[in-house]
Amino acid sequence: MADYLYGINPISEALQGTGRKPLELFLTRGEPGDRLEKLQSLAKQQGLKTTFIERRELDRLVGHGRHQGVLLSLTPFSYVAFSDLIHDWRHSGEPAFFLILDGVTDPHNFGAILRSAEVAGCRAVIVAKDRSCPVTAVVEKTAAGALSHLAVCQVTNLSRTLVELKAADVWCYGLAGDEGSQNLFTTDLRGNLALVIGSEGKGLRQNIRRHCDALLSIPMVGKLNSLNASVAAGIALFEVVRQNSGRPVE
Amino acid sequence: MADYLYGINPISEALQGTGRKPLELFLTRGEPGDRLEKLQSLAKQQGLKTTFIERRELDRLVGHGRHQGVLLSLTPFSYVAFSDLIHDWRHSGEPAFFLILDGVTDPHNFGAILRSAEVAGCRAVIVAKDRSCPVTAVVEKTAAGALSHLAVCQVTNLSRTLVELKAADVWCYGLAGDEGSQNLFTTDLRGNLALVIGSEGKGLRQNIRRHCDALLSIPMVGKLNSLNASVAAGIALFEVVRQNSGRPVE
Repeated sequence: MADYLYGINPISEALQGTGRKPLELFLTRGEPGDRLEKLQSLAKQQGLKTTFIERRELDRLVGHGRHQGVLLSLTPFSYVAFSDLIHDWRHSGEPAFFLILDGVTDPHNFGAILRSAEVAGCRAVIVAKDRSCPVTAVVEKTAAGALSHLAVCQVTNLSRTLVELKAADVWCYGLAGDEGSQNLFTTDLRGNLALVIGSEGKGLRQNIRRHCDALLSIPMVGKLNSLNASVAAGIALFEVVRQNSGRPVE
Repeated sequence: MADYLYGINPISEALQGTGRKPLELFLTRGEPGDRLEKLQSLAKQQGLKTTFIERRELDRLVGHGRHQGVLLSLTPFSYVAFSDLIHDWRHSGEPAFFLILDGVTDPHNFGAILRSAEVAGCRAVIVAKDRSCPVTAVVEKTAAGALSHLAVCQVTNLSRTLVELKAADVWCYGLAGDEGSQNLFTTDLRGNLALVIGSEGKGLRQNIRRHCDALLSIPMVGKLNSLNASVAAGIALFEVVRQNSGRPVE
């Protein structure tokens, strides 16, 4: 069964990416525009069929009107197996950089985190099967095309995944934010690394914390003591980028 | 005319904060819970009236069901005047740390940015009057209570505000992300500072860029070349926190 995607940026990335195979492009009839024309020409280059439909028909297919006049049907999202992930990493010769999500269920947060992970150069995002929202069209639109370039892996037992990563010499850091956690900004985050992010409301589960090599926190200067999950993930991901940009850790 | 707020965290912050004056607390009838009881007791301490209403009545008042069983009426949101902001800063003896938003119109992004700004210790957030969404209940809920502790200032002419800030020895950095911008992570961000963030789609306007002392970019390692506006703002805000945490810049 085909899946679908809407919005100009995600479709543009999907038509140029290496991920899911595009099947058919749908454009609203009589709504010209440079960006829609560019999508049509990208589709043509790939020998893809473009169909023009009425805007209200597109509204009906998507379920709302925020589709920017374009829909792409494509093969279903396919998750990468954990064993393949490890195999590919071992053969890449590159340092590991994984992001692990323990219970991020809000699709907008999930999408924004996938986008940040791709931009930060993460190799893959690993999610717990029963504690994550599936990759829906909302996730994919918020991810702004990241899923065309980023592997996503679903695992059934996150504790076991952490044990296996540690056995493969990957340091697992949990972003916990509790007192007693290490300061994110003064922890050496170079080398093989997995960052573990908890759910917005409840943070990391106790058995996940136990399996982390260390717990990190972002220093909070104001009166509130927590950040939006996707903002916290972004700050941690880009601290890794900063430290790996060829300059020594302070 | 009274304004209102919903959700446990924002109301909890409003009952303990120094911002808007709470007027009356509404709780759903027959839905006990530790967190709701705590709100009731906070309200009682302040001599505030608590009224129990039916859940469907609360749904109707809020316009949807995601209110967590609680509503607070309070005095309308009041913006701080720019002249008061500058006056208060000058008398505080503290370094300036302002966040300026040029066209962030999505209420979820606006709320998340306000939350990050408070946690990062910003003195105030300055927005362009005609290019910002107003502080609505959605903004306030996403801000998770930040508005009880953070000043928000609306200005009619952002270019002029930048000129005035520079005249007051505040360095204005625009987060632009173009080629040729300075690397955020290798720019000295200590001292009197204002960070300027553009809209998600279009970035900073040309005349705003012109008034910035320097343009910064977050290094992007992946294939995509942009981040969610609230994630980008969070990364820049916490790079300021990192550099000001008493350790030398690399």
